[in-house]
Amino acid sequence: MAGVPVSELIHPFSPKDLILPDYVPMVLPGSTILGVYGGVSLLVISFVWIIAGRFPKISKVDKVIICWWVFTGLTHLILESYYLFTPEFYKQKTPSYLAEVWKEYSKGDSRYIGRDSTVVAIEVITILLEGPACLLAAYAIATRKVYSHLLQIAVSLGQLYGTALYFITSYLDGDNFSASPYYYYSYYIFANSFWVWIPSLIVIRSWKKLCAAARIQDRTKTKSR
Amino acid sequence: MAGVPVSELIHPFSPKDLILPDYVPMVLPGSTILGVYGGVSLLVISFVWIIAGRFPKISKVDKVIICWWVFTGLTHLILESYYLFTPEFYKQKTPSYLAEVWKEYSKGDSRYIGRDSTVVAIEVITILLEGPACLLAAYAIATRKVYSHLLQIAVSLGQLYGTALYFITSYLDGDNFSASPYYYYSYYIFANSFWVWIPSLIVIRSWKKLCAAARIQDRTKTKSR
Repeated sequence: MAGVPVSELIHPFSPKDLILPDYVPMVLPGSTILGVYGGVSLLVISFVWIIAGRFPKISKVDKVIICWWVFTGLTHLILESYYLFTPEFYKQKTPSYLAEVWKEYSKGDSRYIGRDSTVVAIEVITILLEGPACLLAAYAIATRKVYSHLLQIAVSLGQLYGTALYFITSYLDGDNFSASPYYYYSYYIFANSFWVWIPSLIVIRSWKKLCAAARIQDRTKTKSR
Repeated sequence: MAGVPVSELIHPFSPKDLILPDYVPMVLPGSTILGVYGGVSLLVISFVWIIAGRFPKISKVDKVIICWWVFTGLTHLILESYYLFTPEFYKQKTPSYLAEVWKEYSKGDSRYIGRDSTVVAIEVITILLEGPACLLAAYAIATRKVYSHLLQIAVSLGQLYGTALYFITSYLDGDNFSASPYYYYSYYIFANSFWVWIPSLIVIRSWKKLCAAARIQDRTKTKSR
């Protein structure tokens, strides 16, 4: 680390020799950051739940899934977009809430604040393709479009692929990007696990529905012969 | 590069400061490597074409797509598997044909021989999940399984996601991994482009087929009401 001023190495992230020039320490506590994210998400979900209920023939499961698509879509398009398009977020003299979110999350995975190219590449695909596709999926369920289940499978598989690659590259690079076991398990493992088990459940559900549709088509063809 | 013996820096790859201890130079010319790959692929495709023709009600387009799935599946499971499970391939004193393939390809993208973690992570997913799924897709088309189109969409999207990430990370890391423009355009761009346009065409085709099936299901439901 010869030649690197000590001030650039003072940060709460792992590994300690990560160089973050002009890093501005956090001002909000982790609990506030999580509280605001949780509160706003709950508000959005409640609002979507009410709106979704106004569409005809929407089951409760459909409503839950619509809420997920809007929640994950907005997370991609607002939270993650901010990260992608604000590479110098950690240098802001008066940090915004979103800058604080990414400093806090980087305690669980410093590859974010360090702008690891795999993480940035996954975010490019997530924000440009999956974000809009999530909102389209919510709309497709509500309006009963024929492509609804297909789109849900496509986006969920994309989320699963991204999450798998995110975990595998961290493992290959030494799995040493968490400030402490607490941040490792709560942010890196627990928070990301939602993008494993929810897309998995959606893929299984939509896969079954589409296979049922293909079976009916087969039968219709056989009858018409 | 202080402390690195000059011998470890003598290799044909870019960037020049890539360190490959005990690198054994290539023995086969590029034309032989490509010729064998092309010849074997052609043999496999001819064999699959004949076998596929023996299944009932298989169209010509189906036969072409079955050939693609077997070709890409075997490429994943043999060629790419060898790379993944032989990290020291470039040190072999008497290099095998497969070791030569990966030295040759690394002229187009040295991240392979350098074992870049993104490339390795993409290969993990490609080999463990997509390889077997490609062969299953060929089988599913031949035996007209109801999940045939869904599986084809899932695997093709996985290939597209992997290829997109492969290109984006290279761009983010400086796009400086080709030994020359010839290798850049022929190996990195042209060879990989097959895993862009073929999966894209398959996704579009299978997507249309499945939407048609969903439409028939909708109509059947409406009638039975």
